[in-house]
Amino acid sequence: MKAALLGHGTIGVGVDRIAASLPEIDIVRVLALETDDEILGRHTFHADDILNDPEIDTVIEVMGGIHPAWEFLSRAMKAGKNVVTANKAVVAAYYRELVALSLEHHVAFRCTAAVGGGIPWLVSLEREKRGDCIRKIGGIMNGTTNFILSRMARDHMAFNDALLEAQRLGYAEKDPSADIDGDDVRRKLSISASVAYDCFVDETKIPTAGIRFVTTDDLAFGTRTHSVLKLAAFSRRTEKGVSAFVSPVFIPSEELLASVPENVNLLTLTAEHSGELSFAGQGAGRYPTAKNVVLDLLDIVSGVPAFYTDHTAAAEIDNLEECYSWYFRSTSSSLLPAEIVEETSHETAVTKKLPVPDAFRYFSLLKETDPEAFIAAIL
Amino acid sequence: MKAALLGHGTIGVGVDRIAASLPEIDIVRVLALETDDEILGRHTFHADDILNDPEIDTVIEVMGGIHPAWEFLSRAMKAGKNVVTANKAVVAAYYRELVALSLEHHVAFRCTAAVGGGIPWLVSLEREKRGDCIRKIGGIMNGTTNFILSRMARDHMAFNDALLEAQRLGYAEKDPSADIDGDDVRRKLSISASVAYDCFVDETKIPTAGIRFVTTDDLAFGTRTHSVLKLAAFSRRTEKGVSAFVSPVFIPSEELLASVPENVNLLTLTAEHSGELSFAGQGAGRYPTAKNVVLDLLDIVSGVPAFYTDHTAAAEIDNLEECYSWYFRSTSSSLLPAEIVEETSHETAVTKKLPVPDAFRYFSLLKETDPEAFIAAIL
Repeated sequence: MKAALLGHGTIGVGVDRIAASLPEIDIVRVLALETDDEILGRHTFHADDILNDPEIDTVIEVMGGIHPAWEFLSRAMKAGKNVVTANKAVVAAYYRELVALSLEHHVAFRCTAAVGGGIPWLVSLEREKRGDCIRKIGGIMNGTTNFILSRMARDHMAFNDALLEAQRLGYAEKDPSADIDGDDVRRKLSISASVAYDCFVDETKIPTAGIRFVTTDDLAFGTRTHSVLKLAAFSRRTEKGVSAFVSPVFIPSEELLASVPENVNLLTLTAEHSGELSFAGQGAGRYPTAKNVVLDLLDIVSGVPAFYTDHTAAAEIDNLEECYSWYFRSTSSSLLPAEIVEETSHETAVTKKLPVPDAFRYFSLLKETDPEAFIAAIL
Repeated sequence: MKAALLGHGTIGVGVDRIAASLPEIDIVRVLALETDDEILGRHTFHADDILNDPEIDTVIEVMGGIHPAWEFLSRAMKAGKNVVTANKAVVAAYYRELVALSLEHHVAFRCTAAVGGGIPWLVSLEREKRGDCIRKIGGIMNGTTNFILSRMARDHMAFNDALLEAQRLGYAEKDPSADIDGDDVRRKLSISASVAYDCFVDETKIPTAGIRFVTTDDLAFGTRTHSVLKLAAFSRRTEKGVSAFVSPVFIPSEELLASVPENVNLLTLTAEHSGELSFAGQGAGRYPTAKNVVLDLLDIVSGVPAFYTDHTAAAEIDNLEECYSWYFRSTSSSLLPAEIVEETSHETAVTKKLPVPDAFRYFSLLKETDPEAFIAAIL
């Protein structure tokens, strides 16, 4: 395989180094903003040098962001090149288009590293749905927020201190919004659900709450109720379509999900024959993520079928059957209607069982007067 | 694929039913001790009807036991048939011979369901070692003992009552020896380590302790030390070869492994690039196990390379660097030399850090005078 890298940041360097030891993969060109010893002689500033080179059969996109990643990926596929990407933003935004291009131009499209970093998650969804029906997926899909919540719970740190530590360790970006607001998880859930259920689950329609405004008081509610606060993704097949939402959640402390440490992800699928299967590991990081990119490349070399599904009809997002008790914390929580509230204390309220759309509607109302309101499901 | 089943018990029936919905797999013959409506017209009492039938290209062995399973598998391969088995006993005992036959006769040999039931464990070892080096494997490989220990810990049940419940629920066999003595785990560890490290790890050389004589007092030691008792497998690459042992172990209660519930297995590998990856799910049961058998069949249909490794040189079992504190409970624990004991109380002793061979040697000594002695590593 003659491949080229679009991007030479954390993941790109990892891919280049792992591939260097594999005779099957020859990375002949590297698009990067600056050159260095590792890519001397292979470096270019111009994507055209890669996209127009007929010798290059495979393009590895590890630059991140939606544009120009999408334009580069679509041009590569139209030029008959296989593409592998670790970029969840572009895959979630253009999932249907990428699958369609892959089918139309008979090229591979693989993105295993886009969800779960080094965890064999998307490939396991691909494997498990053969001869079976995946009913449910979910779990902890973001290591940064799990790290922050773990430190807050274990070391009684404030949110900002835990975030700073995550940034210091390289787990969180300088602008951590995509992690702490849940957008990163929403994208990963969109891709995972699309692969699991053979449809298209539109990320823009997935109700999402994050942990930007979580406080030590919220963590204390978990301690009092023998549960642990996590940011998690939930999805299952329903009669009408697919349920899908992202929310902080209090999980009983004896459950496996509650014990997921530090920056680890734990992703779970439930299939009719296989039952519940969970996959845990580093959801980010140079070498774990690069490893999954390289395995996608090796799969292409071996001729493994190279797109995830050819069914990309949009699924209806149907969260009406997803009922939980909810924890709200807000200076305005007295605005919640009395008939849904089970117990209150100072700024917090615990509700009766409510479906997701109702809970998120109340949450939006609270945020109008208190932008720092917080919501969590209670398992 | 024209396939035949050797065996029509729990797993065989599951395989037959799942395969019935898959056009790629046609199960044309079933060897079974009795016939029934499901196999009418396909049933035979004679293995020869399958092994001598040139129309049958693949043999699925789900009869269990070492003999005549090994004779049937070897005859099938010599006759040019692919083989898939869920039988850990025969694979552990004849791993080298099965791999050699598969190479010699250019037929597939797959046994994903032999370790971890429905968990994609062996296929993940196969996948992860490409372009990487697996350094370490282990975890909870037996659901029956995990169920028994969970019930003893959670519901303060006695061992015999928990075992009876496991038998009532179909988790334990009538003769539970292979589970409770650790032999089942030892076989699974032998197969897993052979695949992970591209060598042959002889099961007969793996030091193994089980839970046959575990008492509520042993569980209570866990509670006092904020740890949870599990039966686990341990193995890593060493300078001289491979470490491997099976032992009860006290695990700090906040660790993922400590939270593995009921009859679930959790298997972990550590690779240089991917880091630590864990896989959890039903380690047994009709449909999960049958599903992995069927996926092996589908892999053969797709032409996925069909044996796990062609390196089967015997590895030296080297447990000298595996050092732990140990918990001993025995009426004879006063026989332990004072210089290795850190603390004692009634019949129990906690030792200083000792390598596995030393700990197991002391354990053998204790068992000479007290056959019900109990040992556990302390993590």
